[in-house]
Amino acid sequence: MRVIYNEQMADLADLLGEMAGLAGAAMERATQSLLQADLGLAEQVLSQDDRIAEMITDAEERAFALLALQAPVAGDLRQVVSAIQIVNDVNRMGALAQHVAKVTRRRHPGHALPEAVNGYFAEMGRIAVSMGASAKEVLATRDPERALELNEEDEAMDDLHRHLFTLLMDRDWKHGVAAAVDVTLLGRYYERFADHAVEIGRRVVFLVTGELPAGTDEK
Amino acid sequence: MRVIYNEQMADLADLLGEMAGLAGAAMERATQSLLQADLGLAEQVLSQDDRIAEMITDAEERAFALLALQAPVAGDLRQVVSAIQIVNDVNRMGALAQHVAKVTRRRHPGHALPEAVNGYFAEMGRIAVSMGASAKEVLATRDPERALELNEEDEAMDDLHRHLFTLLMDRDWKHGVAAAVDVTLLGRYYERFADHAVEIGRRVVFLVTGELPAGTDEK
Repeated sequence: MRVIYNEQMADLADLLGEMAGLAGAAMERATQSLLQADLGLAEQVLSQDDRIAEMITDAEERAFALLALQAPVAGDLRQVVSAIQIVNDVNRMGALAQHVAKVTRRRHPGHALPEAVNGYFAEMGRIAVSMGASAKEVLATRDPERALELNEEDEAMDDLHRHLFTLLMDRDWKHGVAAAVDVTLLGRYYERFADHAVEIGRRVVFLVTGELPAGTDEK
Repeated sequence: MRVIYNEQMADLADLLGEMAGLAGAAMERATQSLLQADLGLAEQVLSQDDRIAEMITDAEERAFALLALQAPVAGDLRQVVSAIQIVNDVNRMGALAQHVAKVTRRRHPGHALPEAVNGYFAEMGRIAVSMGASAKEVLATRDPERALELNEEDEAMDDLHRHLFTLLMDRDWKHGVAAAVDVTLLGRYYERFADHAVEIGRRVVFLVTGELPAGTDEK
């Protein structure tokens, strides 16, 4: 039983890691589509919808089968429960990358972003991609120290997000209301993407240590 | 075992229902605080933070104990897994009510909303409160028909949300960028609140029928 459990749990963790990596890659492409008003890239991100849905179903079924057939207890059970919760986070990360791509598509052939904020989104995109990769790594290594480093990346994301809002609220904002609405929503998508990566880190710390660290101070 | 399982599962479902009801009540109060720029009401919503966090921990621990001690299978197991997923939805619903209250607090003693959109938010608030109550009822009755009715309420919410965006994008928007940013974020909070209520409905349909209905077409 134990050997089968370990094997199946490792497979499930791999699948979750793969999904986190895909979400990061999708966010990278979505950010490029946004910065370059590239419809083709946006469509590539959006075409992954079915694949993500299949992977979600697959992951949920594997977790269910592990519980039903292996009846794990204690630390093993904690792993499966954490996996069920992490499925939701990687799912949302993928959905948020799709939201970014949808904004690109909605504004095409125009640019959704005024040039003045391109730098912010390039950097928020870079951090999001890095956090997707970190989440994947943390799922593979289960290193609690590495998991907590996701908090630092999240703080950098929050700083950018705050600056972006200062810009928006400034009387000198010259780019009109429609652009402000897009920038507001896009900023929120990146910030939430980062929150979910942090949440994956917290769940990994929990499954290793049995203690859930404090949540992110989400705005 | 079976009797204990049924009792503990019923307790857990009650707790989830209570949390959904509380989230609805919090959204009602948050909406009032927003419409009336009432700081006291906003603070009441925000002061529930610790209580919600305790209930989340309590619900997660109960689900874990059910899995560890009762090792449920088939339909019983599906119920516990659904409960774990629903904890996340009620948690987010509570957080979104708090987000609304935070906007009230941030703009106090000013009004966050231009008077022209008060009617939209009064109606979005009404639907959100109703969806919180519906989610609570669905968790208690496990009536799949009733669960699917949440989709209709969600469509009403989406319609309002779309209209709101048309207003924001209109060249005649006279209320400035800062108000547009607030209205954009607030609109998203209400829409996401409704999505989570729909998700609870879907999970209940799944645990009763074994089939997960199609997801909401989230924008």
